[in-house]
Parts: sequence; C-alpha cells; structure tokens
Amino acid sequence: MPSLPEPIRNLIFAFERLPGIGPKTASRLAFYLLRAPEEIAQNLANALNALKTATALCQVCFNITLVDQPVCDICTDPRRDEGLLCVVEEPLDVLVIEQTGGFSGRYHVLHGVLSPIEGIGPEDLKIQPLIERVKSGKIREIILATNPSMEGDATALYLHQQLAGSGVRITRLARGLPVGGDLEYADQNTLLRALAGRQDMS
Amino acid sequence: MPSLPEPIRNLIFAFERLPGIGPKTASRLAFYLLRAPEEIAQNLANALNALKTATALCQVCFNITLVDQPVCDICTDPRRDEGLLCVVEEPLDVLVIEQTGGFSGRYHVLHGVLSPIEGIGPEDLKIQPLIERVKSGKIREIILATNPSMEGDATALYLHQQLAGSGVRITRLARGLPVGGDLEYADQNTLLRALAGRQDMS
Repeated sequence: MPSLPEPIRNLIFAFERLPGIGPKTASRLAFYLLRAPEEIAQNLANALNALKTATALCQVCFNITLVDQPVCDICTDPRRDEGLLCVVEEPLDVLVIEQTGGFSGRYHVLHGVLSPIEGIGPEDLKIQPLIERVKSGKIREIILATNPSMEGDATALYLHQQLAGSGVRITRLARGLPVGGDLEYADQNTLLRALAGRQDMS
Repeated sequence: MPSLPEPIRNLIFAFERLPGIGPKTASRLAFYLLRAPEEIAQNLANALNALKTATALCQVCFNITLVDQPVCDICTDPRRDEGLLCVVEEPLDVLVIEQTGGFSGRYHVLHGVLSPIEGIGPEDLKIQPLIERVKSGKIREIILATNPSMEGDATALYLHQQLAGSGVRITRLARGLPVGGDLEYADQNTLLRALAGRQDMS
C-alpha cells in the first residue's frame, strides 16, 4: 500500500487476518475508526484483551465460560434436561441453537471435527470426556449436531460407532429443504435427502 | 444473547459497532478469535491502541500522517506534481486513487462533505485551507474528486463557486458506465450521464 502511515497499515493487516474480511473491508474499517469516536476503537481493544484472560472452557461441556466459574451457566441450570445432550463442533454452535429457543437439554462441545487431511484425530477433540459423560448413566439421548458437511458427517459416524454399545438413543439433525427455500435452487444432495427423509402429513 | 459469558458478549458488541458488521458476523469474529492464536487478537488490540496516538493529519493536505512527521509523504515527495491537486472527501479516497497508480499530483482531504441535514457547513470541512493553498499560486488544476452522490456533487459545486475566480482549471471525475459493467444493469442516471458525456472514438 503506497504511502500509508504504519499505524493504519498495521490495523488493516490485523483486520485482514480475521475470517471474511478482505483488504477492502479492512481498509474501510481502519479508516472508519480513524474518524470515529476514540471510544469505539478503545472498547474493541479492551474487549480483545479481556477475551482470552477472562474466559475458560467449562469443565463439563467445554463451552466457553468465565475463568472464575469453572462450570458454565447451562451445565449448572437445574431447569435444563440432563438426559438430553447435544454434541456440537464449536461454542458458536451452542449460541446458534440457544437462539432458536427450541432446545432445553445440555451441550457437549467437541472443539473441531475429525479431519485426517489436517491431522486432527479423535484425541484432538473432546471425545473421551463425551464418552465418560455418557458412561455416567444420566444421558438418555445424544443429538449429534455436527455440521452437515463431509467432516461433520464423518465425525458423527465415528461418535455413533464409539457410543453404539452404550444403550443411549443417538440421533442426528434432520436434513432437507431449508425453511423458506426454493426447490429450484436446492442442490441435488439436499433434494435427495429431502426425498429420502419425507414425512407423513398429519 | 442467552448464557454467553460477558467477555465474548462485550467483544461481539464492540465488533457490531463497526460499519458493515452485523450481529452474525460479529459473533463469528468473536468466536473465531477465541480459538485462534492469541497473537491475532493481540495484534488487533495493539493496532487499535496505536491508531489514534500515532497518527495525525498532514498540515498541508490533511491526509493521515505520523505524529512525528507533520507533513505527509505525498506532500514532501518532490516527484509529485505540485500543480495538480485532487480534492477528496476522506483519507481512504487518497488510498483508493493511489492504488490505481494513475495520479501523480497531490491531494487535499476535506474530511467530509457539505450536508445541511447533518448540520455540516463549509467551516466544518478543510475548505478554507484549500482556498489558501490555491491562493499560493502554484496550482494549475484542481480535480474535484468528491463522491458522485448528492452531497458530493453539492460540495463540488460549492468549491467550484469559491474557486471560480482563481484562474485555476477546475475539473470533476468523469461519469459514465463502470468498466466491465453491463448496460442492462446501469441505472437511468448513469446511462443519461454516459450518453451526455459520450466521447469520439479516436
């Protein structure tokens, strides 16, 4: 970048390292912050600094929790069904499912998916603690809510094999047409899944 | 947001205050930083902190410069044409024009546009210093490169009136079809401008 003062260049580079932010957006953000009230950049800097020092993983479900609260709010909430466990890839998935308001069980965050290409095996994920949670005997059903992707499916398959003998019901999120979607724009695989998983109208 | 630890919530809110970043992107960025190497968040925080303390406005053209360098690189570059002045709204516009590699003159950054609705008048912009630069007598041509928007046009018109008696050539960036564009998708005004501004083929 020609003749751009280093502090701005550094900020643009720092923004560019974030996912989904390209050079154009990074420049726009940096120049926006230059003329915005100082407090906006300051708040962001402070929040970034606090992120890793103030957060930790829940000792039960491995979702994000506060450093001084080793078990997270969901795991300690007595109103949530201890028998229903939703297994997700990332903490963000917990947030997404919570926002639907349609799940009242608990979670288990794997922190990734199996990926032989990237050298990620079962020991790199929170799979062993999951097996131990299931062994504790309180769990009735496990919903494998990994992504409907190649890796997500492979991980769900692996977990299914590992947990098969436990006597626990194991389910996977339904596949089909997205709500509000259009048959015309659905890809072949989704349409095949929607056909195979067709349901009786009640 | 249900059951989200405060440090993440704060970071999501801080990201949401940036332009073009909605709640979904803000969550994605925050959760990405949670699992990314700490250095990525750290670099961003440091760059944010340095932004306002290390930068200042160039005393000549009001582009961004370093605190310890009161006149910017472009204004001090003897290879750049002192007689050709490009007037832009924001420092980011300087970057955009520099990236084309097609301009070898100097700049003047207004830091905004006239906007009666927002109460922004000539005295809120760097217009007086522009008039004084023109009076200095070294300038041959002024390119008014404010945005092709209502406010940008009004600002250009105002500047044209103010500078009319100075004997300096005053130009405005050409309007027309964007390169690679499609007649079919051009809006009426752009098409009208492209017709009115049609040029002889050489």
